[in-house]
Amino acid sequence: MSPLDLSLPSTRYLQTLIRDQVPVQLTTLTGENLNGRLRWQDGECLCLACGDGEILLWRSAVATVRPRIA
Amino acid sequence: MSPLDLSLPSTRYLQTLIRDQVPVQLTTLTGENLNGRLRWQDGECLCLACGDGEILLWRSAVATVRPRIA
Amino acid sequence: MSPLDLSLPSTRYLQTLIRDQVPVQLTTLTGENLNGRLRWQDGECLCLACGDGEILLWRSAVATVRPRIA
Amino acid sequence: MSPLDLSLPSTRYLQTLIRDQVPVQLTTLTGENLNGRLRWQDGECLCLACGDGEILLWRSAVATVRPRIA
Amino acid sequence: MSPLDLSLPSTRYLQTLIRDQVPVQLTTLTGENLNGRLRWQDGECLCLACGDGEILLWRSAVATVRPRIA
Amino acid sequence: MSPLDLSLPSTRYLQTLIRDQVPVQLTTLTGENLNGRLRWQDGECLCLACGDGEILLWRSAVATVRPRIA
Repeated sequence: MSPLDLSLPSTRYLQTLIRDQVPVQLTTLTGENLNGRLRWQDGECLCLACGDGEILLWRSAVATVRPRIA
Repeated sequence: MSPLDLSLPSTRYLQTLIRDQVPVQLTTLTGENLNGRLRWQDGECLCLACGDGEILLWRSAVATVRPRIA
Repeated sequence: MSPLDLSLPSTRYLQTLIRDQVPVQLTTLTGENLNGRLRWQDGECLCLACGDGEILLWRSAVATVRPRIA
Repeated sequence: MSPLDLSLPSTRYLQTLIRDQVPVQLTTLTGENLNGRLRWQDGECLCLACGDGEILLWRSAVATVRPRIA
Repeated sequence: MSPLDLSLPSTRYLQTLIRDQVPVQLTTLTGENLNGRLRWQDGECLCLACGDGEILLWRSAVATVRPRIA
Repeated sequence: MSPLDLSLPSTRYLQTLIRDQVPVQLTTLTGENLNGRLRWQDGECLCLACGDGEILLWRSAVATVRPRIA
């Protein structure tokens, strides 16, 4: 289990999406699209707040994150 | 085989779901949805208690965990 | 190639299924269901005895193991 | 989380596509084709600028990158 | 890239299939079935001799190996 | 990011295909077949020259390589 590496641009990119609560769409390796706002991240998972609750996603199962700028 | 890292928020998140026996839905990388309650976790697998028994899931095969708050 | 970690609950769980020759169903990441009894495990693979012989499965390709308690 | 290894030909290859803003097509493990220009890369992810914004992709979810030379 | 670990039962299992040129069926993570005889293995790949030539397979893409005992 | 391990038979196998510019077919984990000639390899990726250009493939996304001997 790897710790979060804050020197990585991708970690900082996600941290900005979390801090600014930017609406995002995540696509998983099963092709499922999940819309919501990222709550937190760690070296293993992402936590997404969506309409009816929270979803814990494994980084290894996430294909893409798209900020949905209005 | 990595040991469980209790400093990770995701590990503690799962530990809370286990402790409080929160009903959850797991989605695997094959797109299968599994409903039940998490029994335990380790660095390699999750154990899910569901209606007719137990299922051992590899972390590498899990896409998402959704708490199903009533 | 990681050695078997006998301190992990999941390794001991599988070892019990092997020792007691519990009938199991394995689901792979291709969605295939395989019924049989686990012969042995190591850090890389599982060996499943099924009706007409043996199957070597990579841990990285296994999604779930379900004990099929009669 | 692995740092970027600039000694790797593939890292330098991607760096050239970024520097020269070459139009590319990425194919993910879900079979999705994404057209755009690479903004940056790190040891974990790639950032793709496409018509309506940006997409963060996990390296582990990318199958191929095709430069689209006019 | 991991070296071959001859202490692993799975490595020795494959080595026996290679030495005795046992006919096998490999199933990949794309669900493709490949019939042939294993030529060699290393920490990264397997080499399968089949009717019209050879196929190099990544271990990470192999789901199962089934010996096809006549 | 792992460096190229020239002691591995699979690395040398690919190096021979590159040196002799043997026509090959690569199958990715999405099931896509790509025909061409390997240009180079490193610890992370393979570069395939095909009719209308080049394709960078992640090793983790490649299932098989088949030399296409005339």
